[in-house]
Amino acid sequence: MIRLAASRTTATGWMMTKRRKSRAVYVGPVKVGGGAKISVQSMTTTHTHDVDATVAQIRELAEAGCQIVRVAVPTMKAALCLGRIKSRIPLPLVADIHFDHKLALEAIRQGVDGIRLNPGNMRSREGVFEVVRAAKRAEIPIRIGVNSGSIRGGGKAPNLVKLMVDTALRYCEDFERLKFRDIKISLKASDVAATIDAYRLIASQCDYPLHLGVTAAGPPDTSLVKSSIGIGTLLAEGIGDTIRVSMTGPPLAEVKAGLEILRALGLAERGIEVVSCPTCGRCEIDLSRIVEQVRARLAGVKGNLQIAVMGCVVNGPGEAREADLGIAGGKGFGFLFRKGRRIRKVPEKQMVDVLVQEARKLI
Amino acid sequence: MIRLAASRTTATGWMMTKRRKSRAVYVGPVKVGGGAKISVQSMTTTHTHDVDATVAQIRELAEAGCQIVRVAVPTMKAALCLGRIKSRIPLPLVADIHFDHKLALEAIRQGVDGIRLNPGNMRSREGVFEVVRAAKRAEIPIRIGVNSGSIRGGGKAPNLVKLMVDTALRYCEDFERLKFRDIKISLKASDVAATIDAYRLIASQCDYPLHLGVTAAGPPDTSLVKSSIGIGTLLAEGIGDTIRVSMTGPPLAEVKAGLEILRALGLAERGIEVVSCPTCGRCEIDLSRIVEQVRARLAGVKGNLQIAVMGCVVNGPGEAREADLGIAGGKGFGFLFRKGRRIRKVPEKQMVDVLVQEARKLI
Repeated sequence: MIRLAASRTTATGWMMTKRRKSRAVYVGPVKVGGGAKISVQSMTTTHTHDVDATVAQIRELAEAGCQIVRVAVPTMKAALCLGRIKSRIPLPLVADIHFDHKLALEAIRQGVDGIRLNPGNMRSREGVFEVVRAAKRAEIPIRIGVNSGSIRGGGKAPNLVKLMVDTALRYCEDFERLKFRDIKISLKASDVAATIDAYRLIASQCDYPLHLGVTAAGPPDTSLVKSSIGIGTLLAEGIGDTIRVSMTGPPLAEVKAGLEILRALGLAERGIEVVSCPTCGRCEIDLSRIVEQVRARLAGVKGNLQIAVMGCVVNGPGEAREADLGIAGGKGFGFLFRKGRRIRKVPEKQMVDVLVQEARKLI
Repeated sequence: MIRLAASRTTATGWMMTKRRKSRAVYVGPVKVGGGAKISVQSMTTTHTHDVDATVAQIRELAEAGCQIVRVAVPTMKAALCLGRIKSRIPLPLVADIHFDHKLALEAIRQGVDGIRLNPGNMRSREGVFEVVRAAKRAEIPIRIGVNSGSIRGGGKAPNLVKLMVDTALRYCEDFERLKFRDIKISLKASDVAATIDAYRLIASQCDYPLHLGVTAAGPPDTSLVKSSIGIGTLLAEGIGDTIRVSMTGPPLAEVKAGLEILRALGLAERGIEVVSCPTCGRCEIDLSRIVEQVRARLAGVKGNLQIAVMGCVVNGPGEAREADLGIAGGKGFGFLFRKGRRIRKVPEKQMVDVLVQEARKLI
């Protein structure tokens, strides 16, 4: 074997030690960057001028673990509703602005906690500067959101990536001339590789906190893969301060996916985690059913617990032993493990009950 | 702004230029490593001794794009079926062996294209060496599969990662003393961060091709996130030669997810890709329905095409212009784009028909 020189003395603790240093900004009470926990965002799909529907959706998102919420502000009618929405929700509110700076000025008057805009699609350059000055007075941050779709003539990567990064940095410099530094940056492309490269490049060129996401990621099954790779790869490299999974569909799934990504990388509380094997030809119990029933019966239970449901005696006992609670299946029965110790034999029919009972005891 | 020195002169083309150099092995006709395309694997869930069911499942996997298939070989009865299975399937066949080296010897006699085993759970050390000698004579590769669950006393990362890597490298050295080098390595943990770190570490220490996967990743929704992050992060860093998504459930979904991961990173043909926006409060058309219907009606159509279905005039025209085919929605209508040019206005009701028609024309 060719033993290559290790490029690092140790590979472990990579994610924690290598996290990119960014400056902190505050979206309401939520700290973004500067070593803060990575926050999960989403965006409403209701008409913003329908205050009741918007508030109801935001409350649902908050309940699921969303920490910052954004709403579209396409009209002055929508902008004028923001104060009422804000007064009825438990989350910091960000106004998504396009084309018309007056909508942003009104949003700031209404008391929003942040503005998201792309200076490149605003009609008036001087209007953008007015928004920056108003945000400075209100002490709220602005996210500069450069999407691949907004770059004219960018074409495909590598040009596109360089153009996105240069464009965003030029906007930052414009804002800094007004002594405004409460900036977050996003560089979303619908191409995952371009998204990763764009964030990698800008991460090495400035210290602003980064809002991660893959844009236009498509329906849930496609988005789950694209967003997990795009956001996950960057987080695993220490890049990123706040995330939004973008999906065609109800935003609740975006929040769940965002949290799942953070959990998978150990960047959020685990909650109840069920690990289970892929049920090969060695499996003699109805594993899928058991996993689904255990998950359903423990849904909503708060606490951190890893439960391993394994189909056979090959990897089963090992995984079951490492988890807080585990079952390693045999033929119509399984061995129950608790905190690394084998406790007793359990018939298949009782597995769900026993796992749920033991889980509740441990939490 | 603090302009940091760029750590690379260019961030683009990262994935292609940085791909780790590995030696090549062949699983049947499929080259793994040595610059070959990344292959997608899966594993059957049927009883291997049920030859008809196993063959049927393998054919279904092959049809979906699977390139290498593995079957569990828990008994001599199963081992004795491998030749019959192999003669009826279009894919190279890998035998998954635990505990008993005689099962591996029989599998090799039956003509399998590869063996997967974990020397650490085989009852006889001398038996493993017999398998290595038999594989050498048969000129088939062995995957050394070290799973986190098989490491006794490993505990949690960072110890676990180092132990997994050291264990795998020690097995490699054992095999090399028998002049056997047709080795692939996998280091699967159910913890995503540990999986990533283990592969990163071993990638820097040897040149054997790596089989990527997150083990016991759980049911589809969880596995999709865990596997996309684990496998995707490594691939985006240039690490990995063949992949398997592991899911509790039917293996067809594993193959689809594996291909989706490769596509997202530009490592496989794109196929028909629908990008679509997350439908915020600016969207005035029924986007989810349109996306689902377009996908359903183009399912099974061969060819490479990117279709953008966008809900509004903000990012819509940009994305629609970059795609091969696109719709940017307005209120009850949309603009059709083809190869970057705006073609005409289309009423919402006709969007699905028009997109499907245009897609068929372009392919």
